Amino acid sequence: MTAVGPETPGARNYKLTIEYDGADFHGWQRQPRGLRTVQGELEDAARTLFGHDVVVRGSGRTDAGVHALAQVANVHTTRELPTGRILRGFNGLCGRDVRVVKVEEVPADWEARSRARGKWYRYDLLPRIPHSALLRGRVWRVAPDLDVARLRDELATLPTTAHWGAYRASDCSSPDPVKTLHAAEVERAGEIVSLRFHGSGFLKQMVRILVGTAVEVGRGRMELGSMVRIRDTQNRAQAGPTAPPHGLFLERVLYGGDGRVY
Amino acid sequence: MTAVGPETPGARNYKLTIEYDGADFHGWQRQPRGLRTVQGELEDAARTLFGHDVVVRGSGRTDAGVHALAQVANVHTTRELPTGRILRGFNGLCGRDVRVVKVEEVPADWEARSRARGKWYRYDLLPRIPHSALLRGRVWRVAPDLDVARLRDELATLPTTAHWGAYRASDCSSPDPVKTLHAAEVERAGEIVSLRFHGSGFLKQMVRILVGTAVEVGRGRMELGSMVRIRDTQNRAQAGPTAPPHGLFLERVLYGGDGRVY
Repeated sequence: MTAVGPETPGARNYKLTIEYDGADFHGWQRQPRGLRTVQGELEDAARTLFGHDVVVRGSGRTDAGVHALAQVANVHTTRELPTGRILRGFNGLCGRDVRVVKVEEVPADWEARSRARGKWYRYDLLPRIPHSALLRGRVWRVAPDLDVARLRDELATLPTTAHWGAYRASDCSSPDPVKTLHAAEVERAGEIVSLRFHGSGFLKQMVRILVGTAVEVGRGRMELGSMVRIRDTQNRAQAGPTAPPHGLFLERVLYGGDGRVY
Repeated sequence: MTAVGPETPGARNYKLTIEYDGADFHGWQRQPRGLRTVQGELEDAARTLFGHDVVVRGSGRTDAGVHALAQVANVHTTRELPTGRILRGFNGLCGRDVRVVKVEEVPADWEARSRARGKWYRYDLLPRIPHSALLRGRVWRVAPDLDVARLRDELATLPTTAHWGAYRASDCSSPDPVKTLHAAEVERAGEIVSLRFHGSGFLKQMVRILVGTAVEVGRGRMELGSMVRIRDTQNRAQAGPTAPPHGLFLERVLYGGDGRVY
């Protein structure tokens, strides 16, 4: 059975905004042999809800263990259902660690991936010795010698359009490692130090390698200015370790220019 | 075997600051017949760590399902150990949903309960239809018709010294229902609406009944001014429902006056 798609006569196209706890998922992308993924969970739900095969197309992948507050995807269906029914249908059929939080009808040719103009990611650090009872699996506990002002100064040197090859996974297959990083900010709320990145797009594990390297600088194990110097080498081996996935949150996918959501 | 206490010759007294996820605990207080409680978990760990029986005395109880960012307790021991060893010892012996985040030596007669001058509680609401994938068990999902400005206005009428008998569990055994509520504030962060209460002390389920009633007012199901009117009846039956425990966090226990922690 062929999945319903943009070419299917009479197909409607829906934009889904999706929150998930990445802990029990092998990432976003559907995997073979029964590994649980967010896309797979949503596609299984959609098949039941719509009564036909369907592909849920995300704005991009997230790694195993990474969370999302507002991942965006689109899905086509020939079934006529009000958006409220679609939202409740997905949430009734999916595990509680994935929730469709918004459903909007969009033009038939709209794609969550190609229309995305940028993304915001957040990475949460907890610089103290004891772990957190409430935030385990949601934050990276790091050594308490982290200098937040130093971390902020270092991240402020990063935003620009550049080749980010030093900050991507060695198996990253993207043909275009030139991306624009619009912002790299640090915010402290109580004991949590949040790093936020706004970019035109991100390479595989780019945020996690940026964070792993920034923590080295923040702890005084690398000099101020190291991150730009490393970027210019375009060599992954120069950068710091890859931060673990469980501190990372896809916060927002940006569409349109003037406040339009698509 | 008698537990080591303040009368035991040579006993040292330690103040513990404790974070816990209340989901898998039958509340703070030790229960008979193997029900898992925070106090029980800490006392079992202390017995192993110190090599003698011990009572971990909290600043007060929390209900089953209620969380704490910084519950405070004190514990006596005749075992001589550096505070860092005590902290690591508790955290190595307790489940990951309870973490001792600070250990400080205090005078032998210091008590977490009688020395407490006040507490801050926070209650988190999520006013929307879909639940949250990431905050399930950490927030009370309520109807989206919650009017936050109205909620704020209503809570602002509450702070004073009064008889709070209308806002306590029917089986509350406290001999003194007169407490001072110093603050009742509302803060919005993204979609989460946080209610914060600072009081000299709180009756059993007082915060949860205040929240359950405030939500009725915020949703327009009770008139503005209802909460003070209900308080003056001193009648539990007049107040709203008891909000569920999982949105409630003990944020801070206050000691001393001028910034001292004990």
